[in-house]
Amino acid sequence: MPNFPKSVEIKEEGPREGFQIEKEFVPTARKIEFINALSKTGLKTIQIVSFVSPKLVPNMADAEEVVAGIDMQPGVDYTGLWLNEKGFERAAATGRLAMKGNLNLCASETFLKRNQNRTGEQQVAELHGTIERYKSHGMPVEMAGISAAFGCNFEGDVPVSKIMDLAKVIFDITAEHDVSLKRFLLLDTMGWGTPDRIKRCVGALQDQYPDLEYALHLHDTRGMGIANAYAGLEMGVAHFDACVAGLGGCPFAGNKAAAGNVCTEDLVFMCEEMGIDTGLDLDALAECARLAEDVVGHPLPGSIMRGGSLQNLRDQAAA
Amino acid sequence: MPNFPKSVEIKEEGPREGFQIEKEFVPTARKIEFINALSKTGLKTIQIVSFVSPKLVPNMADAEEVVAGIDMQPGVDYTGLWLNEKGFERAAATGRLAMKGNLNLCASETFLKRNQNRTGEQQVAELHGTIERYKSHGMPVEMAGISAAFGCNFEGDVPVSKIMDLAKVIFDITAEHDVSLKRFLLLDTMGWGTPDRIKRCVGALQDQYPDLEYALHLHDTRGMGIANAYAGLEMGVAHFDACVAGLGGCPFAGNKAAAGNVCTEDLVFMCEEMGIDTGLDLDALAECARLAEDVVGHPLPGSIMRGGSLQNLRDQAAA
Repeated sequence: MPNFPKSVEIKEEGPREGFQIEKEFVPTARKIEFINALSKTGLKTIQIVSFVSPKLVPNMADAEEVVAGIDMQPGVDYTGLWLNEKGFERAAATGRLAMKGNLNLCASETFLKRNQNRTGEQQVAELHGTIERYKSHGMPVEMAGISAAFGCNFEGDVPVSKIMDLAKVIFDITAEHDVSLKRFLLLDTMGWGTPDRIKRCVGALQDQYPDLEYALHLHDTRGMGIANAYAGLEMGVAHFDACVAGLGGCPFAGNKAAAGNVCTEDLVFMCEEMGIDTGLDLDALAECARLAEDVVGHPLPGSIMRGGSLQNLRDQAAA
Repeated sequence: MPNFPKSVEIKEEGPREGFQIEKEFVPTARKIEFINALSKTGLKTIQIVSFVSPKLVPNMADAEEVVAGIDMQPGVDYTGLWLNEKGFERAAATGRLAMKGNLNLCASETFLKRNQNRTGEQQVAELHGTIERYKSHGMPVEMAGISAAFGCNFEGDVPVSKIMDLAKVIFDITAEHDVSLKRFLLLDTMGWGTPDRIKRCVGALQDQYPDLEYALHLHDTRGMGIANAYAGLEMGVAHFDACVAGLGGCPFAGNKAAAGNVCTEDLVFMCEEMGIDTGLDLDALAECARLAEDVVGHPLPGSIMRGGSLQNLRDQAAA
């Protein structure tokens, strides 16, 4: 029998994943409006911006203004993404973000070069300094992740053994620095995941590191997002990144059609219908999804915002 | 461990499901062009038209012309849908269709009334005459199905016990007529299925009728189509209805946003990537999906036609 978790925690990444890929500049006020709406859905963590080069990602040029402009709700962690020290310093300087010391390695050197302009050796070497920098800022270092964990458009399939090797590198280095990780994130950056691959990779990690929490970041490039999330649930995975309306895509994945993350409200629907608690307001999320379409000005792939949830229909049928 | 089938058979329903819901009349020649393209993908069964009231479903008014106009490929069964005796006679009169005596009951009386204008008692009573009519035409009666099997927009959840009751009605009646069914189809007509519901219902039927083949017809109204198909695969289900590009929707489901079936090429991608043989040409199906968008003149939901398959990327990575 599947080992479903009793509840799951969904980290919303729509504002960051979604706006970074838009060709037209999304006005700062509309970004803030969307984030404010997300803040009222029960979400506990929302990644709202990235601190990256405004030349490469023009829609993140107003990251500081967005952070300064939102109405922060108590109990919600607002986070930002950074890929280097400069980005980290910008994030810290806002003074409003939940600063968490996440570590990351990329399973594909080719993608790493394109996305972050560094080599595999460099990214491993830099982990030491990164951990110490986080520690010196008093930041918790609790999560590590591996991107391109299931395959790469440039390098092909990523074997589970490579993930195990990279995990060992991470745990060896964190041990050197007396850091004890709580959570391990697998990112299907380019949509190579299938349910069986998700299960094999998560299962191998669980065998080796049974006390860790596992998290999945699933891009829906090939339509497998929700099936992959289901496979994760069957393995007991209780932490998912997701994007309202299925917003997003990665500008550097070498695929014009790179799709967004698994859709938050579709994932919430599946979990709640299966009796897995999300703590989220499904109708409010669907409203946010419709707002997202209005903000970006084109249709987005989410289903529940169009198909509707079942509770209203159940209520009508019972009436 | 999941009980994956070694191979699956996918019945394509895109032409029927897809065109019936279009507001604009799709020219007969373009319907034929699309069906001819589908005929070269390895599909063994393609449902190309329905014989229903042209007043209610104007896009099926040219059903006879479509059947007469296609280039029939050897080894492909072309089928039509009918809901009453008149429709059956029209289908038989074409002389070109694979005439199979499928039986159907609907789990929701309200939907049955709206979709076929008859009561639950009527549909059961009519089964006797339907079986004898099929037998008198020398048609095999090998499959029965239950529509609205997981829930109904008008009646709410459908319990597994109701499906078991309806299955018993079907098997009692077929036994009276010395008919031995081979296959049992569950239709998620209004998108109420979730992976756990699929598994519970299929599992209960398998326990009671272990020698039957099971088939799933999954609408993607709430984004669960591919996850539901995956759940079916885990239960050993080896027969799926699907629609290229995710074409379709039901005009009588009481939901403006009723979505099409699970997308053929996305399902093929998932199966083939998991080592489950489909016998289908994924790239040719993706080409058909792009043709479908051109024929209907608006975007369709399939992912693989945009995201691409992985084989080319693997080949490039290995080069």
